[in-house]
Amino acid sequence: MKKIGIGLLGCGVVGEAVYRALTENADIVSAKCGASVKVIKIAVRNPSKKRGKIPAHLFTRKWREVVSSPEVDIVVELIGGEDEAYAAITEAIKLKKHIVTANKLLLAKKGEELFKLIRKAGVNIGFEASVAGAVPVIRTIREAVASGRIISIFGIINGTSNYILTDMMENGSSFSDALGEAQRLGYAESDPTFDIAGIDAAHKLAVLANLAFGTPVKLKDIYIEGIALLSPDDFLFARQFGRVIKLLAMARNDGGKLDIRVHPAMVSVNRPISRVDGVTNAVELEITDAGRLMLIGPGAGGEATASAVIADIVDTARDIVRGSVGRISPTGFLPDTRKPLPLKSTDSIKSGYYLRFTVDDKPGVLAKIAGILGANGISIDSVIQKGRSGGPVPLVVLTHEAVEKSVRTAIKKIDSLSSTRAKTILIRLEDGR
Amino acid sequence: MKKIGIGLLGCGVVGEAVYRALTENADIVSAKCGASVKVIKIAVRNPSKKRGKIPAHLFTRKWREVVSSPEVDIVVELIGGEDEAYAAITEAIKLKKHIVTANKLLLAKKGEELFKLIRKAGVNIGFEASVAGAVPVIRTIREAVASGRIISIFGIINGTSNYILTDMMENGSSFSDALGEAQRLGYAESDPTFDIAGIDAAHKLAVLANLAFGTPVKLKDIYIEGIALLSPDDFLFARQFGRVIKLLAMARNDGGKLDIRVHPAMVSVNRPISRVDGVTNAVELEITDAGRLMLIGPGAGGEATASAVIADIVDTARDIVRGSVGRISPTGFLPDTRKPLPLKSTDSIKSGYYLRFTVDDKPGVLAKIAGILGANGISIDSVIQKGRSGGPVPLVVLTHEAVEKSVRTAIKKIDSLSSTRAKTILIRLEDGR
Repeated sequence: MKKIGIGLLGCGVVGEAVYRALTENADIVSAKCGASVKVIKIAVRNPSKKRGKIPAHLFTRKWREVVSSPEVDIVVELIGGEDEAYAAITEAIKLKKHIVTANKLLLAKKGEELFKLIRKAGVNIGFEASVAGAVPVIRTIREAVASGRIISIFGIINGTSNYILTDMMENGSSFSDALGEAQRLGYAESDPTFDIAGIDAAHKLAVLANLAFGTPVKLKDIYIEGIALLSPDDFLFARQFGRVIKLLAMARNDGGKLDIRVHPAMVSVNRPISRVDGVTNAVELEITDAGRLMLIGPGAGGEATASAVIADIVDTARDIVRGSVGRISPTGFLPDTRKPLPLKSTDSIKSGYYLRFTVDDKPGVLAKIAGILGANGISIDSVIQKGRSGGPVPLVVLTHEAVEKSVRTAIKKIDSLSSTRAKTILIRLEDGR
Repeated sequence: MKKIGIGLLGCGVVGEAVYRALTENADIVSAKCGASVKVIKIAVRNPSKKRGKIPAHLFTRKWREVVSSPEVDIVVELIGGEDEAYAAITEAIKLKKHIVTANKLLLAKKGEELFKLIRKAGVNIGFEASVAGAVPVIRTIREAVASGRIISIFGIINGTSNYILTDMMENGSSFSDALGEAQRLGYAESDPTFDIAGIDAAHKLAVLANLAFGTPVKLKDIYIEGIALLSPDDFLFARQFGRVIKLLAMARNDGGKLDIRVHPAMVSVNRPISRVDGVTNAVELEITDAGRLMLIGPGAGGEATASAVIADIVDTARDIVRGSVGRISPTGFLPDTRKPLPLKSTDSIKSGYYLRFTVDDKPGVLAKIAGILGANGISIDSVIQKGRSGGPVPLVVLTHEAVEKSVRTAIKKIDSLSSTRAKTILIRLEDGR
């Protein structure tokens, strides 16, 4: 049986799980690909640290040693971050090694460049683990969508923020309490910015959008809003409207322009995605012929992420065994067969809106606000107004579909009224049109 | 660019959609696989019938002509049924043609035999379209599950029955009204037996179980219950318990034995699968390392099913272009690497149960029934008892987990009581343990 050597760069939770799976489930892996797949070398910062049952002699401090080992056929990059990972991957490609990576940041920033190098070298790259952990969304876009065009991608692809939102929804927690709880449980990092500000989701969305729309998107071109401004009130009102709040990543081919954004959105409880809770991820693809496909599963965790890494290893092992390396191009398409889409400005998007005004509890306020909305062409679907004893009160409006720019203009005007006591909160409704 | 010829057997809704996609989206297909893919010949019962824009000269009455055409590389079997499809496929394999099929019945009955012939001939077989239409469940099991073992498969894989159940749930329709409506809308056939009796779902489950557990299962070995006995009352009670009723197909490796069945089940409204409505399908896979993956999408319809057929065509086209035919074995595993599991008897399964008794509305009846349940080791979770003016009344019990055999024994006893006025209805609870 052919031997295939794996070089691991990085050995945290995922790396250890990859080693464990390739060792303990070696029989399954070889029955899947017809080769014996073994970890040859592992680059880590601290080679003397004990890591489970992994023999000490496999460790080295230098990634170059791993990448240049003649026994290594596939380099699995799990370092994360930009510079070192980039250096190691480009060096490995030069040496005709195949690449498997979970690095969404690098793919979002340098994906196109890496894909060109990969094609030129005639090697494989697998990156299923970079988006939504164990969920086979990259495979589905690259392989299962074969004759249709993707109209939209839509999903929950950051487990940390979904954990926090689920806690706020179910237990009425404040944002900061929910974040603290997530940190205690290891679902959020000590610096949670990337997750709660929507940046991690935007990196992943950029990876997906490039595959789905042939459009490399820079982070600055994605409209991004995080979840830190949401208050328990918003979740209570959402419930009254039969909705939940989710941090959604969305990319849509809207009449030939790419509408791409990450922000909190209110979703009806009747849709399966509303029931995707905790650290679970979900991606919905709308495809011209196949309709709506939704994939749900664990978005993080060592074993789950490792399972995606190993599926990519097995794909390449099959290609090595059969001499068909490069069988599928990095994007699933022959190069130069697709034109990038121009970007749609967020100003011009249309959506329904949840608007929570904070206003003085006195006569005439609702009339004034409704007047401003009407003057900007925004029609009201429903209103919740509740009096409270003294002080400012929330006034909540759901709008019918309206143009973002008009909504922003109206809010600006409303926020400058003397009866308005705090910045208006805007959450888009997502009804899966 | 290499030319790849397709021979279609059958040209109903799906066949026409395959032709249309390969023609109208020829650019996407060739950008995906690097070959020009064209339909060469189509076998149909009535070649003179006009079918959309398909040129008349492609049609023939004889499948042998399609299968033996030297220009045909891939035979797409869409005839359905057993004998003719079997004859055509085996003949095609003999002639070293690759096979793509949507025929779950044939795969359920003769899958193992066909897979052996496929391996011996060194050709490919794709059958994504045989289960859950556009949903890439076969691809996920064959390719995305690479190091883990599948613990269970669990899903809604018959669109017709799900349409009927959704109608009964949402509109309080009776079974026969809902069936009539489904027939009017073309979601149910004039003889709906296969769909409503659970047989179609069982065929599909057999296909999945063979892939997932390496166990060829005969139809007679699957415990099958259909949906015809469900009444609007059951849906009302389900709602009171925070549940919906779905026809579930399930296969589970339960301590080394295969528990495999198709029956209506009550599912909590908090689970995404409870929101899978109408003709949509869903499959949940529980995997040792990847956790729970759920795939949701259109389970039927010409275009959606054709999209799965074309993904299989593109897979094989990639293999033809790269000379890697046979790259993935029919089951995803090298032959003889797995041992079939013995079957678990339905008597020994454990589940929670919904039991709807129809009893006289008089004192002591509940005590008697509770007594019989208790004597059989069945503990009660909750009870709904409602008096009505005269006549028999429903008495509903939800049990904690109990052994099926004991439940059946208890029901037999209860059904023989003089105070019991109709056969007891049993629906299993499915709580995704």
